[in-house]
Amino acid sequence: MSTRHTFYALNPATEQTLAGQFAEHNQADVNLAASAAHEVAKSFRQTSPKTRSLLLQAIADCLEEQREAIVERANLESALPPARLNGELSRTTAQLRLFADVVEGGLWQEAIFDTANPNREPLAKPDIRRQNIGLGPVAVFGASNFPLAFSTAGGDTASALAAGCPVVVKGHPAHPGTSEIVAKCIAKAIEAQQLPQAIFTLLQGTSHELGQAVVSHPAIKAVGFTGSIHGGRALFDLAQSRSEPIPFYGELGASNPVFILSHRMAEHAQSLAEEYILSMNMGCGQFCTKPAVVFVAKSKASEEFIATVRQGIKQQPGQTMLTGGIKHNYLVQSEERASQSGLTRTQSQPDNGVPSMLFETTSDEWRNNPQWQEEIFGPQSIIVVCEDDQDMLQLSTNLAGSLTATIHAEEPDYPIASRLLDELEEVAGRIVFNGWPTGVEVSYAMVHGGPYPASTMPASTSVGAEAIKRWLRPVAYQSVPEALLPDALKSQNPLSVRQSVDGK
Amino acid sequence: MSTRHTFYALNPATEQTLAGQFAEHNQADVNLAASAAHEVAKSFRQTSPKTRSLLLQAIADCLEEQREAIVERANLESALPPARLNGELSRTTAQLRLFADVVEGGLWQEAIFDTANPNREPLAKPDIRRQNIGLGPVAVFGASNFPLAFSTAGGDTASALAAGCPVVVKGHPAHPGTSEIVAKCIAKAIEAQQLPQAIFTLLQGTSHELGQAVVSHPAIKAVGFTGSIHGGRALFDLAQSRSEPIPFYGELGASNPVFILSHRMAEHAQSLAEEYILSMNMGCGQFCTKPAVVFVAKSKASEEFIATVRQGIKQQPGQTMLTGGIKHNYLVQSEERASQSGLTRTQSQPDNGVPSMLFETTSDEWRNNPQWQEEIFGPQSIIVVCEDDQDMLQLSTNLAGSLTATIHAEEPDYPIASRLLDELEEVAGRIVFNGWPTGVEVSYAMVHGGPYPASTMPASTSVGAEAIKRWLRPVAYQSVPEALLPDALKSQNPLSVRQSVDGK
Repeated sequence: MSTRHTFYALNPATEQTLAGQFAEHNQADVNLAASAAHEVAKSFRQTSPKTRSLLLQAIADCLEEQREAIVERANLESALPPARLNGELSRTTAQLRLFADVVEGGLWQEAIFDTANPNREPLAKPDIRRQNIGLGPVAVFGASNFPLAFSTAGGDTASALAAGCPVVVKGHPAHPGTSEIVAKCIAKAIEAQQLPQAIFTLLQGTSHELGQAVVSHPAIKAVGFTGSIHGGRALFDLAQSRSEPIPFYGELGASNPVFILSHRMAEHAQSLAEEYILSMNMGCGQFCTKPAVVFVAKSKASEEFIATVRQGIKQQPGQTMLTGGIKHNYLVQSEERASQSGLTRTQSQPDNGVPSMLFETTSDEWRNNPQWQEEIFGPQSIIVVCEDDQDMLQLSTNLAGSLTATIHAEEPDYPIASRLLDELEEVAGRIVFNGWPTGVEVSYAMVHGGPYPASTMPASTSVGAEAIKRWLRPVAYQSVPEALLPDALKSQNPLSVRQSVDGK
Repeated sequence: MSTRHTFYALNPATEQTLAGQFAEHNQADVNLAASAAHEVAKSFRQTSPKTRSLLLQAIADCLEEQREAIVERANLESALPPARLNGELSRTTAQLRLFADVVEGGLWQEAIFDTANPNREPLAKPDIRRQNIGLGPVAVFGASNFPLAFSTAGGDTASALAAGCPVVVKGHPAHPGTSEIVAKCIAKAIEAQQLPQAIFTLLQGTSHELGQAVVSHPAIKAVGFTGSIHGGRALFDLAQSRSEPIPFYGELGASNPVFILSHRMAEHAQSLAEEYILSMNMGCGQFCTKPAVVFVAKSKASEEFIATVRQGIKQQPGQTMLTGGIKHNYLVQSEERASQSGLTRTQSQPDNGVPSMLFETTSDEWRNNPQWQEEIFGPQSIIVVCEDDQDMLQLSTNLAGSLTATIHAEEPDYPIASRLLDELEEVAGRIVFNGWPTGVEVSYAMVHGGPYPASTMPASTSVGAEAIKRWLRPVAYQSVPEALLPDALKSQNPLSVRQSVDGK
């Protein structure tokens, strides 16, 4: 018997090792998990929508039962406060239940029919019916910043299981204990539904090689990833360089620009400042939708806004970041930015945890420093002071792809807001009006994606009902007799899916 | 003034230069075309569906007006017979008119609404509405084998214009004269609709560098390609290695396996043989849906089938291939295959043009020679003789991704056919029942795609109404007031698009 390497979780608040020892999975484990997933992929994608809906509900139920243990462990491993983690667990179970509804709803199958016309000239028109089916085994990478909602039983796993795809999760090494409890819940739900355990495997480890092995395995047919540009791009490149390239759905980063127009600023400088401080510091600035840049026009009101933000920043309590590595990067990157000319910095000076920081610059300096669009993960943001609304509008034409873009406007601002919206549609997956980008609704209409680097697949969303489409592909059935057609395409429509006929 | 390099078209039948001199476009031309496309992209995607529908219809009308000139030139450049080219032109205009209907129909917008709930606890639920918008400028590569339907005004161009994306076509150097006439029709239609000419540019040339420059240009946001694995994969790799990777919709090759089950064979050996010969020789075997491999079970009937196919192959008249390069590859690859042990070959011996070829092998030899799944472009196919239907079923589990897979079965074959269908769904974009794969309906339900290498994007189709989705991405609008919402998302619904609310 070969020696198993193991690893431990660290408590980021104390920098101490936590109880619990985790096996470092290796290439052999990847082979086993991916091959087993391949073996059951066909039968799993052919299970009824009802079966998969029950599975997702059972996972949600089990997570609820384990709520206390999950939140306790996740708090130790992530330093995120219990209130936030309780909310995140509720979000995770709501997400599982949404996909249970989605899979039973039958819209995801996109059943589309062409009616035959044997008398058409010069050639008879055949009966063709198409539906979506599961792509095959999916690899999911757990994210550090949402140890529940974007991790082991998060949105990627929920939507892939809903689609009928077996899942191999590469757990995030920052919260292996949380992942293990969650994986046990999933295993229990699978057993209760009498489905094969091979439809879900959690692989754990600290090496980059583990993730690379998962992405490279020929049985894996798609990847879901949320994380940094650096790590995500390396895995994306690997997925595209396979002999069979596969879809890689990576959410890699965003600056989530916010534009506050003049009339709105004039009326709400104070409350805008308070909301901004809250949004940028939420979860220690470790949200992918953190507003990393705010554009304002020079005015008395915006001066008041900035003064209030500065004041608020100075008073921010310290927060503990998710991992030592993330803290290190935050501090190094922030110092590096602060050392550049053209920026001023205001920061808090907490006894514990990392400081919150506000940078300020002008539109001219911003134009000359495109590198400031790069996201620094943590409680930090930049205010760009523009000459006027026109200057702000001009800056909106040179933004990198982002998950969100926000407009604050009152009715007299609408002419400018309208032009701004036209520009922001080009770069963002979601436009927020008179709100803040943090807080991503898990719903039917949500888009959590956008042009690169917000997403490596700009036509997709990783949150909300439409996220299921990432794991599907269409198949057309030409002149196939009723007896052999899949249920969703039978004329009798036993699953009651929505069937669109001849474009109607 | 710098010297312009030029090139000429060759007549593949005579190997003589044809009249007409074409500029070799270069990096500077790519920069001009892509930048101009970028400049007009926002206004073009915001044109009304009606405007784009009229544009597509106007292009179709103009192609009809130029039918004679187009068919004449395409015949000289491709050696495809006028009857085929007339049919292909009709298909091309029907395709343009289908997308005119699709863009007006409004399903492509996928308008999805979440209803706000200000009273929800712990947080109010916002109003969110999503729609699809055009991705931006699209590069389209003309294909040699369909100089009209998959070229300058083919399905990629039609669907991209329908989506509101400007198009830069890299014309195929085998039919520059045809492309030029078609491009003039498009320019005329654009002018008639008073749209900017920059929404469409044809770039011509013989160098690989031209295509590479188009794919690499930062303004290009997606690529449509139909062609060889070799060339397509190189461009795919380039698209994925950009600093901003872009979706590359490549249709690269397929073996289009056909399974003839025993009862079907027993009843129809003769007509199956005749249909097979027709399908594999159609267009000189230069169809992406050519049946390159047929599986049969040993029987008296299949012996009769094979004997008839052999007979038919020997009698095939010679056909001229699309280009000298394609002919060269066909002959070299066929000889190379014929030299391998385990195969027998029957071929025609025409005075002119290339010979038609039938290879035969056994299931054992097929298992040991996976390289025979690689498509040889041309009038050539392999029959694999299996021990029985079970043996055939087993072979179906080891197929590469393909555009189509075909089952021939009578009712007593249905138990086997059903299991075969389960396997073939895994590898093909379209399942054909009791027919032949050549002939791709341009319709609502068509899927022309499939797992790699059939498509580099297995979730897409390059033919049919759903092909428009390749050029779209979703955007969500959170709490945006009615006055600022795009028309498709206004509560008044001025465009009468289908709006789905809260998953209903």
